[in-house]
Amino acid sequence: MTRQTDLAYAAELDARDPLAHFRKRFVIADPDLIYMDGNSLGRLPQSTVTLVGDLVKRQWGERLIRNWNEGWFTAPERVGAKIASLIGAEPDEVIVADSTSVNLFKLVVAALRFQQGRSSIVTDNLNFPSDLYVLQGTIDLLDKRHWLDILPSPDGIHGPVAEIQARLDSQTALLTLTHTVYKSGYIYDMSALTASAHEAGALMLWDLSHSVGSVPVDLHAAHVDLAVGCAYKYLNGGPGAPAFLYIRRDLQDVLRNPIAGWMGQRNLFDFEIEYRPATGLRHFLSGTYPVISLSLMEAGVDLLLEAGMDNLRAKSQLQSEYLITLWEECLKPLGFNLNSPREADRRGSHVSLGHAEGLRIDQALIHEMNVLPDFRPPDTIRLGIAPIYTSFRDIHTAVMCMQKVVTNRLYEKYPRQAPVVT
Amino acid sequence: MTRQTDLAYAAELDARDPLAHFRKRFVIADPDLIYMDGNSLGRLPQSTVTLVGDLVKRQWGERLIRNWNEGWFTAPERVGAKIASLIGAEPDEVIVADSTSVNLFKLVVAALRFQQGRSSIVTDNLNFPSDLYVLQGTIDLLDKRHWLDILPSPDGIHGPVAEIQARLDSQTALLTLTHTVYKSGYIYDMSALTASAHEAGALMLWDLSHSVGSVPVDLHAAHVDLAVGCAYKYLNGGPGAPAFLYIRRDLQDVLRNPIAGWMGQRNLFDFEIEYRPATGLRHFLSGTYPVISLSLMEAGVDLLLEAGMDNLRAKSQLQSEYLITLWEECLKPLGFNLNSPREADRRGSHVSLGHAEGLRIDQALIHEMNVLPDFRPPDTIRLGIAPIYTSFRDIHTAVMCMQKVVTNRLYEKYPRQAPVVT
Repeated sequence: MTRQTDLAYAAELDARDPLAHFRKRFVIADPDLIYMDGNSLGRLPQSTVTLVGDLVKRQWGERLIRNWNEGWFTAPERVGAKIASLIGAEPDEVIVADSTSVNLFKLVVAALRFQQGRSSIVTDNLNFPSDLYVLQGTIDLLDKRHWLDILPSPDGIHGPVAEIQARLDSQTALLTLTHTVYKSGYIYDMSALTASAHEAGALMLWDLSHSVGSVPVDLHAAHVDLAVGCAYKYLNGGPGAPAFLYIRRDLQDVLRNPIAGWMGQRNLFDFEIEYRPATGLRHFLSGTYPVISLSLMEAGVDLLLEAGMDNLRAKSQLQSEYLITLWEECLKPLGFNLNSPREADRRGSHVSLGHAEGLRIDQALIHEMNVLPDFRPPDTIRLGIAPIYTSFRDIHTAVMCMQKVVTNRLYEKYPRQAPVVT
Repeated sequence: MTRQTDLAYAAELDARDPLAHFRKRFVIADPDLIYMDGNSLGRLPQSTVTLVGDLVKRQWGERLIRNWNEGWFTAPERVGAKIASLIGAEPDEVIVADSTSVNLFKLVVAALRFQQGRSSIVTDNLNFPSDLYVLQGTIDLLDKRHWLDILPSPDGIHGPVAEIQARLDSQTALLTLTHTVYKSGYIYDMSALTASAHEAGALMLWDLSHSVGSVPVDLHAAHVDLAVGCAYKYLNGGPGAPAFLYIRRDLQDVLRNPIAGWMGQRNLFDFEIEYRPATGLRHFLSGTYPVISLSLMEAGVDLLLEAGMDNLRAKSQLQSEYLITLWEECLKPLGFNLNSPREADRRGSHVSLGHAEGLRIDQALIHEMNVLPDFRPPDTIRLGIAPIYTSFRDIHTAVMCMQKVVTNRLYEKYPRQAPVVT
């Protein structure tokens, strides 16, 4: 009889996986590489290779300036509408441009100006540090009347839900949280938190960067006001792919983009001196967006739409459960802790395992085992599951390699300090 | 004897052109297309086609997340340093990221906060409307104590130099101008205006979008404080390529980026909660930049460095003089006005010709003649000269086609209203 820890069991799961054929739609340059970092940079879709050729050689090289009228001007809305259908929004409620940080800045400033007389932003310490930096910068910029409440997680894994709900009051302008937490993979209850924000009269802004493409999101069902997210993780949009922003339709014309720009001007080719914002979401564009990087995203988004978010979530849950089963059997006895929620419905698509030697184990996995996870301080190895291409065999191999690295002390030759990146 | 209006004369000029061989370094998909819009979107370098293959297939597809440490993290500085050498800056004074509008926003906000007690921004109505929108948005955002002075050009062609100099006073926080004006091609005297700003205690910010790659710029010689510019025009960086920003070294650590982001954080991989800006220019990065679009720029910049800015300027001046000679002979009698400076040293690399039927002539050139200029309201046809690939034959053909369109009234079937773009 096959045991769950046998490779044959992983092979059986792969054979039964209805999404398994999607793996062939991605470039797998090194079949022996176990890539567990799709939560940081998604793999390259085959169709992106075709698309980039068309974009560069035909659209830019042949059509030149004419291609602005042949697709580039509408790309932010066209790709945005596709992302909208992944996150439960209307097609005209999502637009693509800039980076997540710049989009967050625009929405936070707009929200604070809209919420006259309210002075606080509530968030938690599980939020992306990048988001916290944007919030700090915004508070610092606007005036000294605003402040930021960063509520601490009780255990570094779960969101401080009760504390957040208790902190919301008539002073709260905005509640902003990352829906799926980057370190632990904890998923907030979007409807419950949004409702709490609204009860206090606050606006709700979700960062969907770790959810979009891996966790079903229904912004409309939860009556969400604002959202941002990136496209280079589970959307497989390419390194640093532009980000998206969502504004609920009835807020689109009352919120003002602080970075007024030509792409958000009502009549672009009148070249008027006065800024007159376009209606709808378009005025939340600022300058000219990076067309190649933006257009390339579309191939990755199309693949997710084809696979279907519910199917992807079902596979992702099977896979993270499988990983946790293997952890319990093979890694827990070696000192690995589960730094992700044990409850499947509160867990996104990556599993975080802590270990006192986490950093060195991560280095050994990369350099000795051809396994690519990532590391988050102080001790956490993140194993990202991108259900559209991650196989059960990938997960099995990753766990067995982690076991081997610790059992055979292969990590000992690596330094305790992280290499400096820049 | 060959007359200046003969095609043979253009052929002679091409034969004598020491930069003529650079045209082969670009993709010329349709040899019959006369492309006079390189001031709006530069052509595709051959080397970019090779580079994009490497970027997508090897760097993203094979190296995946590892490529962040193998070039992507340093790309903003690496490409920035190359642009620096085109504009007379030190390598560590230019960095690439975001769009021109977002970079302008960051620098203007930083300048206003630095210039405590000074309340005005001085600019002119020849500035890019996009820049004026950013300035209006910034004033609107910060508070009601700041204001914007948009000084009018005396003739729509030349900058209101004396009026600007007279307006600068102890209230002026910032003087910001576009170095080469997008409509007329007028070039400001960078040293003189920067000196005037400094005499009044104001900071000076130049938009170099229409200068970089076509007009020599020496930021250091002129003691310039701040600059921005785009890469999709004469730098041939690709549609919507990210923009660059320049901050004089001694201002880098005293100015604060209002869009604080992870890419500007001192120790990225500590994931600290508190924002601590990196030293130097790096803290003027915000979120994750579009790697593919940003990296692609490098091939275009390399070509300009190889050709040399002085050589490019010499050819550009020969070419715009030649165009104006042809205008005088062939187009002036047909009602075309010269909407660019007649003085060669005050003229950038495009020539603007006004005509009462300008919009319809532009349409006829595109659809009947396979000539691509662009149009700026109310009546101006811009003929962009990109000396690295524009030939004298291109210029000759463009003028002859304009003559034919008007002589044969080929424009009459086109509507008087511009088509709506979005």
